[in-house]
Amino acid sequence: MKKTELSASREARPSQGHDNGVNRRSFLARGVKAAGMMAAGGATGGAALARAAEPIGSTFPAWSTVIGAPFRGYGQPSRFEEPTKRFVARAYGDLAPGTGSARTPLEALEGVITPNGLHFERSHNGVPDIDPAQHTLMIHGLVKRPLVFSMASLLRYPKISRTCFIECAGNSSQNILPAEPLQLPVGAVHGLVSCAEWTGIPLALLLQEAGIEPGAKWLLAEGADSAGMSRSVPIAKAFDDAMVALYQNGERLRPEQGYPVRLLLPGWEGNMNVKWLRRIKVTEGPTHTKDETSKYTDPLPDGKARQFTLGIEVKSLITRPSAGMKMEGRGLYEISGIAWSGAGRIARVEVTADGGTNWQNAMLEGPVLSKSVVRFRLPWQWNGSNALLQSRATDEKGNVQPTRKAYKEAMAVDSRFHNNTIVTWSVDADGSIKNVFA
Amino acid sequence: MKKTELSASREARPSQGHDNGVNRRSFLARGVKAAGMMAAGGATGGAALARAAEPIGSTFPAWSTVIGAPFRGYGQPSRFEEPTKRFVARAYGDLAPGTGSARTPLEALEGVITPNGLHFERSHNGVPDIDPAQHTLMIHGLVKRPLVFSMASLLRYPKISRTCFIECAGNSSQNILPAEPLQLPVGAVHGLVSCAEWTGIPLALLLQEAGIEPGAKWLLAEGADSAGMSRSVPIAKAFDDAMVALYQNGERLRPEQGYPVRLLLPGWEGNMNVKWLRRIKVTEGPTHTKDETSKYTDPLPDGKARQFTLGIEVKSLITRPSAGMKMEGRGLYEISGIAWSGAGRIARVEVTADGGTNWQNAMLEGPVLSKSVVRFRLPWQWNGSNALLQSRATDEKGNVQPTRKAYKEAMAVDSRFHNNTIVTWSVDADGSIKNVFA
Repeated sequence: MKKTELSASREARPSQGHDNGVNRRSFLARGVKAAGMMAAGGATGGAALARAAEPIGSTFPAWSTVIGAPFRGYGQPSRFEEPTKRFVARAYGDLAPGTGSARTPLEALEGVITPNGLHFERSHNGVPDIDPAQHTLMIHGLVKRPLVFSMASLLRYPKISRTCFIECAGNSSQNILPAEPLQLPVGAVHGLVSCAEWTGIPLALLLQEAGIEPGAKWLLAEGADSAGMSRSVPIAKAFDDAMVALYQNGERLRPEQGYPVRLLLPGWEGNMNVKWLRRIKVTEGPTHTKDETSKYTDPLPDGKARQFTLGIEVKSLITRPSAGMKMEGRGLYEISGIAWSGAGRIARVEVTADGGTNWQNAMLEGPVLSKSVVRFRLPWQWNGSNALLQSRATDEKGNVQPTRKAYKEAMAVDSRFHNNTIVTWSVDADGSIKNVFA
Repeated sequence: MKKTELSASREARPSQGHDNGVNRRSFLARGVKAAGMMAAGGATGGAALARAAEPIGSTFPAWSTVIGAPFRGYGQPSRFEEPTKRFVARAYGDLAPGTGSARTPLEALEGVITPNGLHFERSHNGVPDIDPAQHTLMIHGLVKRPLVFSMASLLRYPKISRTCFIECAGNSSQNILPAEPLQLPVGAVHGLVSCAEWTGIPLALLLQEAGIEPGAKWLLAEGADSAGMSRSVPIAKAFDDAMVALYQNGERLRPEQGYPVRLLLPGWEGNMNVKWLRRIKVTEGPTHTKDETSKYTDPLPDGKARQFTLGIEVKSLITRPSAGMKMEGRGLYEISGIAWSGAGRIARVEVTADGGTNWQNAMLEGPVLSKSVVRFRLPWQWNGSNALLQSRATDEKGNVQPTRKAYKEAMAVDSRFHNNTIVTWSVDADGSIKNVFA
């Protein structure tokens, strides 16, 4: 593996040597030339992306001849996009139908924002049907003035918006536990991450209103779902960037994301962002709830376990092309994917097409925001032979995405949380793409 | 009206003098203090935002005691958000059911992103039900190689994403034509503007592939709807920032926004962003289609009309509090709204609570992106007396949002397009809020 230097540049810096078909500097020039030659029936070896136009005929498709669908109050996707759905994975089947997840189909999406209908969901006993007129948020414990907030009162407070990702700590566990790689779309394995613009109230504002007592160091955040999902949060996070979130991509929260109110802890593991938030208790220490003792801890090889591993590590995924897709012949492709880090901004994403011998910096599409998903892109001239595609992200703190081998060596055999390891897609000469461990 | 100086600062700069209750510098301090005092039953005169907590009872709401809703492939809003819908306005009723618009309920939204289900729609003969496997995009006219692109081929091209607004040129016409102000929610009058993250192919890339012939100066863009909506576009825009858009907030375009492919001309009037794009013809001059001669021109007092007024001007709106809402007693409120300009970034938004005697800079929430909606916020201590709320945006080119009076003087009496004038909400002592002309 070639030694690479760290860089905070948001622009790609193609290497000077052999580029293995992956190169950004000649992006537009090559893209236009190759595509143009292909379209003109040239000898670049790729399938034509466009075909030569024939004279416009006298017939029109049916939809150009009839009055279209009427106006709707709330829009829905085209019926032709019916297959673009979240992947539902129920942990215990009918035994506990509300325990599991619905995962974002990352392979079908573009850009950074996850549309609200496809934002991932992780629930422990189903989605409660909460009437906002009846729901309240209580702040109590080590406070001067225990307070109860109605939703109407919360909506009057000064608000902030920010775009950030949420990732379940258990995301990608199905790529670390099995001995053999699963052949599933990228969203089915890695789709417990999504990104949205959230709007709400700085938690600090509400805590200051209640008045923190001396000795307060932690919070207990509890949901109103029937699992009573609850987690302990260091109080410093509240005075950093924690938000009591009310809106998601402009509209009120979706039920699966905690309607009518959730906790948002930017960059921290998903289930701490307690949904259906009904109670914040200010405490001296962590509460050691069932959700942070029986789950969301990280077993180590020596029998001990890490607890309160709260931050999400630097990570990236190539979403297209990816497992289960098929390359349609040699020629120009765009490698596109997402990267994120709970520690701040993504500084760079490198891409290899040969399993790590040569790496190229991908273009990071701006604005590159702290604790947000960023989209990376790199053109790739596929020559029709076997390839191993990987991406490797580095954040502004210098954290680098590790290999799967490094995780397996550091953690117990059944450790499954915080798997941020490099993902590998194998491209065969026939164009088929598989998930492999490399 | 106090003379104000222009500023490119994205931060607020509160004036030194009397601030009429509107002040950002003391935002958090005052917010916390006022809200805290209110909660403690203090004498600030406002209704308490939170109430003191009572001991937690032994009863739980029903939703905390039963298994919640199962996982869904594609999520929907809470049933309690049913009223949050687009406003449907059909221009000719049943005579032409597909002619009209569905407007974004701006008063119910927050942040910058418009969720896809609520993005405004303007259609001229309904929404066509297009099968992407059958739809093609042709580029012809003054090109070396006329080309036809299938949707599958378009999806392979290198892509870009950007967040930008689209505003119909006819937005806010109902606040400039009537002699008396309509008493409707802000979205019903001004909701022909929305903002999304769009992903697609630079139009320049496709035009370069087709090869532009000398003399080409304009494009004709034509939709596949049965209105054959078509507009002429200066070719320079194609080589600036025009996009052939395929995705909207991460997922494929919604039918109302042009599925499976639309033209995106950032910052230019909405109906040039031709939806259901089926044809781009490269031409010497404008085509003078029905949609740019009979409509979307701007009559002047002398009987002439402006044509090809393509850019959207600088504009802002206070969305909360706004017409039809009711203030719930004296105390702290957040004034929140949106601003945008087709000329680039918003440099500042000023807010007045006294009809223009005193102005304060609002906070602009970053990142402030070119040709995107930006959210502005300003705390306001309402003292319970009459108030006139206005916002006035300035963009980075120094363009300032004009008054309604200035528009009426400059344009013909029936001119309705490109109304970017200052909007005024009148707050009565009883807390009711009305739309007024000031």
